[in-house]
Amino acid sequence: MITTFDAPPQRVAMSGTPSPELAKRISITEVRPHLSRGRYAIKRIVGEALRVEADIVKEGHDKLAAVIRYRQLPAGEWREVPMTYSYNEDEWSGTIPLDAVGTTEYTVAAWTDRYASWVDELSRKVGAGVAVASEILEGAAMIEETAGRVGGELAIVLNAYADRLRSAEHGLEAVAVAQTPELVGMMHDQAQPDDLTEFFTALRVTVDRERARFAAWYELFPRSQGSVPGEATTLREAIDRLPAVRAMGFEILYIPPIHPIGVTNRKGRNNSLVAQPGDPGSPWAIGNEYGGHDAVNPELGTLEDWKAFVRAANELGMEIALDFAIQCSPDHPYVREHPEWFRRRPDGTIKYAENPPKKYEDIVAIDMWCDDYVNLWQELRRVVFHWIDTGVRAFRVDNPHTKPIAFWEWLIGEVQREHPGVIFFAEAFTRPKKLQELAKIGFTESYHYFTWRNTRQELEEYLTELTTTEQAEFLRPNFFANTPDILTDYLQTGGRPAFKVRVALAATMSPSYGIYSGFELVEHAPLHPGKEEYLDSEKYEIKGRDWNAPGNIIAYITRLNAIRQQNPALHLWTNIAFHNPDNENIIAYSKVSPDGSNRLLIIANLDPFQAHSAWITLDGAALGLDASSRYVVHDLLTGARWPWQGTTGWVYLDPHDEPVHLFRIEFGG
Amino acid sequence: MITTFDAPPQRVAMSGTPSPELAKRISITEVRPHLSRGRYAIKRIVGEALRVEADIVKEGHDKLAAVIRYRQLPAGEWREVPMTYSYNEDEWSGTIPLDAVGTTEYTVAAWTDRYASWVDELSRKVGAGVAVASEILEGAAMIEETAGRVGGELAIVLNAYADRLRSAEHGLEAVAVAQTPELVGMMHDQAQPDDLTEFFTALRVTVDRERARFAAWYELFPRSQGSVPGEATTLREAIDRLPAVRAMGFEILYIPPIHPIGVTNRKGRNNSLVAQPGDPGSPWAIGNEYGGHDAVNPELGTLEDWKAFVRAANELGMEIALDFAIQCSPDHPYVREHPEWFRRRPDGTIKYAENPPKKYEDIVAIDMWCDDYVNLWQELRRVVFHWIDTGVRAFRVDNPHTKPIAFWEWLIGEVQREHPGVIFFAEAFTRPKKLQELAKIGFTESYHYFTWRNTRQELEEYLTELTTTEQAEFLRPNFFANTPDILTDYLQTGGRPAFKVRVALAATMSPSYGIYSGFELVEHAPLHPGKEEYLDSEKYEIKGRDWNAPGNIIAYITRLNAIRQQNPALHLWTNIAFHNPDNENIIAYSKVSPDGSNRLLIIANLDPFQAHSAWITLDGAALGLDASSRYVVHDLLTGARWPWQGTTGWVYLDPHDEPVHLFRIEFGG
Repeated sequence: MITTFDAPPQRVAMSGTPSPELAKRISITEVRPHLSRGRYAIKRIVGEALRVEADIVKEGHDKLAAVIRYRQLPAGEWREVPMTYSYNEDEWSGTIPLDAVGTTEYTVAAWTDRYASWVDELSRKVGAGVAVASEILEGAAMIEETAGRVGGELAIVLNAYADRLRSAEHGLEAVAVAQTPELVGMMHDQAQPDDLTEFFTALRVTVDRERARFAAWYELFPRSQGSVPGEATTLREAIDRLPAVRAMGFEILYIPPIHPIGVTNRKGRNNSLVAQPGDPGSPWAIGNEYGGHDAVNPELGTLEDWKAFVRAANELGMEIALDFAIQCSPDHPYVREHPEWFRRRPDGTIKYAENPPKKYEDIVAIDMWCDDYVNLWQELRRVVFHWIDTGVRAFRVDNPHTKPIAFWEWLIGEVQREHPGVIFFAEAFTRPKKLQELAKIGFTESYHYFTWRNTRQELEEYLTELTTTEQAEFLRPNFFANTPDILTDYLQTGGRPAFKVRVALAATMSPSYGIYSGFELVEHAPLHPGKEEYLDSEKYEIKGRDWNAPGNIIAYITRLNAIRQQNPALHLWTNIAFHNPDNENIIAYSKVSPDGSNRLLIIANLDPFQAHSAWITLDGAALGLDASSRYVVHDLLTGARWPWQGTTGWVYLDPHDEPVHLFRIEFGG
Repeated sequence: MITTFDAPPQRVAMSGTPSPELAKRISITEVRPHLSRGRYAIKRIVGEALRVEADIVKEGHDKLAAVIRYRQLPAGEWREVPMTYSYNEDEWSGTIPLDAVGTTEYTVAAWTDRYASWVDELSRKVGAGVAVASEILEGAAMIEETAGRVGGELAIVLNAYADRLRSAEHGLEAVAVAQTPELVGMMHDQAQPDDLTEFFTALRVTVDRERARFAAWYELFPRSQGSVPGEATTLREAIDRLPAVRAMGFEILYIPPIHPIGVTNRKGRNNSLVAQPGDPGSPWAIGNEYGGHDAVNPELGTLEDWKAFVRAANELGMEIALDFAIQCSPDHPYVREHPEWFRRRPDGTIKYAENPPKKYEDIVAIDMWCDDYVNLWQELRRVVFHWIDTGVRAFRVDNPHTKPIAFWEWLIGEVQREHPGVIFFAEAFTRPKKLQELAKIGFTESYHYFTWRNTRQELEEYLTELTTTEQAEFLRPNFFANTPDILTDYLQTGGRPAFKVRVALAATMSPSYGIYSGFELVEHAPLHPGKEEYLDSEKYEIKGRDWNAPGNIIAYITRLNAIRQQNPALHLWTNIAFHNPDNENIIAYSKVSPDGSNRLLIIANLDPFQAHSAWITLDGAALGLDASSRYVVHDLLTGARWPWQGTTGWVYLDPHDEPVHLFRIEFGG
C-alpha cells in the first residue's frame, strides 16, 4: 500500500520527468475547520463532537472512500471514522468525538473504492439495458483476488459470492449479488487501495474543559476583604468572604498577585509617586526581600495559607485563577541574582517599565530577549508549575502583549502538555490583530472589548463579528463588566440601572463573564471624571467595605447566576441572534440551546435614565416561531409572564424598575 | 544578521528547552492574497499592480519595518518594496508591479526598526515633558555604532549627527536632530536588524497576458466553412473565411481537433452508430493510419497548411486555440505502439470510453495511471510542444476532469515555464469543486456554467458568487453562449431575440466570451426537443452555410465586439454591480472602469417573447451617481440617447425590437 500526501503548501517544482511521489492520485484540497491551514489549533470543549469537512477530488467517475483520522497528542492511537459525501460527491463530512481535554490532531485520508466503483458501473449499465457479461467477469475477478489475498474463512465466503456472480442469469441478479451488504462490507474492510492519500498535514484542535467556556468570574483582592478601610486581611481571613461570593453564584475567583511587594518607588494612594507609611503598594510591583514570583507576601500569610485558601475555594465549588505578571519591583530577587535579565540605561541603571507618556515607576521590565533568555523562560515556566502545584488551574495573564508571542506559545504548550485544561486568560489591549494572535497561539480566553461597547449598534456589530467570523474558532471573550482599571463612563454616570444592565448583558451574551468586587455595591466614583480609574483604587490601598450596603445588586447578580446555571442556552457562545426593536435604546437578542428546548429572549433598555418602549420584530427562524405561534414569555428575573403571539412583541422597560427582561419562551400550561 | 522564518504551517513541537530557531522575534501571521496559504497561485494580468497585505505583530511598542520581497520565477533577482501600516500598526500593505508574464513569487519580511523606535520614544517623552538625557545618550550611541560599522564618508556624517545630538540644549532640539530626513534615511539604509523575519513561505501569482482575461472567442470547424452541405473545405480553403470572422471582431479562433479521424466504429450523422460512406466522423475520435495527436488529417491538408492557417489568422489579428483531447480512436497509432497505455476488459479487448449510460463507441480511453505513465505523460507533453511550435498559443482542453489533476499541474507548469502566456482553457462539467481545483492548479480559464443561468435571479447569484468570493482570485470563466454540445432550451425556443440577449449578456458580463459558429445565423434546431444536442450536428457531418442568411445577427455581434474594444469597463471581470428593476424579467448591471471615466449600464429584457418595462433603482455608489446627478444614457447599440436624473430610470424593452440597452453614462454636451 502506497500512502502519498496531498501537496505541501508550497508546490515542489515538478519539472522534467513527472515524479511518482508528487503524482498523487487523489487531491484532498482542503480540510475544514482549520486556522491558516494548520498553523494554529482551533478550540473546542470536551464532550463536543467536531464536524470535519473535506473537499476531495479525483479525475473521472470512480467512487471514493474517505475517513477522518484523529488522535490525542502527543502519542495517542490513531483512530478513524468514515466520512460521507454531502455535496456533489466532492465535499465530504464526518464527525469525531472530543472526549478528552488536551490536543487532538485530525486529518483526512481518501482512496478509490474500487469495489463500490465497479458496483456503480454495473448497476448503471444494467439500468441502461447494456450487456454486462464483461463487467461481471471483472467483478468476480476482483472478489477472487481479495479472497486470495485474505485467505481462510473469509476467502471461502468471498469465493462463493464470486461464483454466484458468475452464474447470475441476468444483469439484475448480478447487481443484487454485488450489492449484498455482507459482500459490500467485506470488500470494504479488506480493501488494499493503491492510491491511499492523506491530507498534507494534521490539523489540531485544543480541547478545553467546560469551565474554559462557561464560568462566572469574580475578582477580589484578598488583603481588602475586611470592613474597615486600612485594615488589611490575611489569606486566612479572606477565606471568610468566600461563602458569600459563592452564594452569589460565582465559579472562578481571580486573585491579583499575592507576592511580596516592592518598597523602592512604591506607589501611594491613588497612584501617587510617594507612598505614605503603611501604604501597601500595588500587588503588580512584584518582589522584595521576602521573595519574588514564587513567594507569598508575608502580609497575606504563608504558602500554606495560600494552599488553604485555594482548598477552601475548591471545597465551596470555586476554583482559583492567579495573576501572572512578568515584571519586577526594583527589589525583586531577580534584579540582584540575574542582572542580565534587565535592560539598562547608558548610565548603567535598570530601565523602568514605561509606555511614554505613561511610566511605571514601581516596576522594571524584564528583557524577554536578553542573551540569557533560555534560562529566563525556563525560570518563568518553573514559576507557573510551582503555582499549579498549589492547586491553581487558571492564570490571568497581565499585559501578555508586551512579552514575546513565541514565549507564550512555548509556555502554554509546556504547561498544557503536562496539565491539560489549565486556563490562560489574557488581559486585553487595543490592538485587535495582536490580541487575536495571542488567542490563536494558545490563550484560552481573553478580556476583549465588551466594556467599551455600550450602544445597541456597537453591541450588535461586536457580537456579530465575534460569533460569525473565523474568530469564533479561536477567540473566547470573557465579558468582564468592570476591572480595577476600567470603570467606564456608562457606569460612572448611569447609577444602579447601568450596573444592572451591564451585568445582565455580560452574563447573558457571553458564557464567560465576570465582575471585579465592588461592582455589586455599585461603586462608581472615578479618580477624575472622564477617566476610567477608580477613586481610591484598591490597587494602592486597603479597602474596607460594607458588603450589605444599601442599593447593592447582590440579589440581582445572584439571580442572574442561578438563571445561567439552569438554562443551557446560556452555556454557549455562538448561538446568539439579534432581533429588531423599533427603538434604538432597546436591544433584543436570543440564545437557543442546540436541541431547541431552551429558548431565551433578552430585551434590555440601554438608556439608564429614561423608560422606553418598543415593538420588537422577532427573527422567527432563530427562535423557532412563526406567525401562528402562541407562547408565554416568562421573565426569569421577576417571575412575570405575558402571553405573546406570532413574531412581534411589545415591551416597556423603566430602568428604575427593571431595565432588562430575561424571557424564557414557554409553551403550554 | 539572523533571518528566521515565521512558523511553518505545522507547529514544530517546542517542548523542553526553548530553541533559538523557533523563538522568532516577529510574527508574520498572514500574507494576503493567498490561496490555501500558498498551495496554489493566484492569478493576475501583466501590467497590473498587486496589493499585498500582511498581519505583522510583535510584543511591546517597538516600531517595525516591513517589505514585500518578490521575484520572477524560476530565477529572477529578489526585489523589495516597502510596506506601510494601514491599520492600528499591525496590518501592513504595499504594492508590487507585475511587469512580466510568467510566475512571480512574493513574500513579506519584517524587522524591528530600532532607530525609528528610539525616535518615537524620544519624541513621546519630550512631548510629555519627561527628561531625556539618558535617551539622547542611547540614540547617539546607536548612531555611533552604525558609523563604526559602515566606516568611510558615511561614518563622518553619522558621527557629526551623534555630536549634534549630544550637544542638543533641550529635548525639542534633540528631536529635531533625530528626525532629520538625511539621518533617518541613513539609519534605515544601514540598519542591520537582529530579528529579520520572513513569512514561512513565498506565495505565487501567475501573471497572464491580457488575452487571458479579455478576448472574444469564435469556434469553427475548418472542414465546414463552405456553402454546400457535404462538401468539405480544407485548411487552405478555410482561410478564406477568416476575414469575415475577424470583421465580426473576434480575437481568438478555437479549432476542434484537426487530426486524422478513426474509421473503426466511426459515428454517422446525428451520432448514429453506423457511419455511411462519406461520413467524416467526429474530430474527437483521434487517430488513424495517417497518424495521431501530432498529425494533420490529410482531408484538411498538411502540417504546412496548418501553419499557413495559423499565420493567416495571426496576420488578421487573431490567434488560434487548438483543441487538446486526450483520447484515441481504436485506429490511433498509440493503440498499436503502446498497448500498455490502455485499459483492457477481461476478454483482452480495449475498454471504450464511457460514463454509463453514455458510451463513446468511437474512442478508447487512455489509462493515465498505467504503469508506464511517466512515458505517456512525456509523450503528451511532446504533443503540446509540437503544436506550440506551429504558432498555437492557446489550448482548449477537452474533458480535463477525466484526467489526473496531478497531470495537469505538471503539464501546465512544464509548458508555461518555457512558454509563459500559453493559455489553457478547460471544458466545464457539473462538479464545481473539481472545476475549481483545475483552475487552482493552473488552468487559465474555464467554460463554466453561464449557458445554464438564464433568469435574473440565477444570473445575479451566479455573477455575485464568481466575482466577490475567493473564486475571483483564480477562476476566469469564459462565457460561451453556445457550443457544439450545448444548444439550450432558451435558444431553441426564444428565437432571434433570445440569441441577441444571450450574446449581449455574455459579451458584457464577462471580458472573455465566445460563440460557436452558426450562432450568428440563429441556428436553433435541436436533435430532440428538450435535449441540448444540435440537429445535424457539425460534429458528425460536413455543414454548408449561407453566411448571409436572412435573420442573421452578424451586425449585432460586430457592434457588440466593437463596443467591447472601445470601452475599458468591459475589459475587467470583478467590476460588475447589479441594480434593481421592479420587474423580474428585466436585469440591470453596470461595469465601471477603475478610474471611473467609463461607466456602462446594461439593461436587458430576459423574456424573449414579451415586451416589458421597469423602473430601475440604481446603486448610486456603484455608478458614482446621486439624487442630484443629471446625465445622458447613450445606447451604444442603437445610438439613442435619453436624459436621466438621479438614481432612478425607466426602460421599455421589446424583444422584437431591441431586447437590450447598452448604455454609456455621459455627462455634459
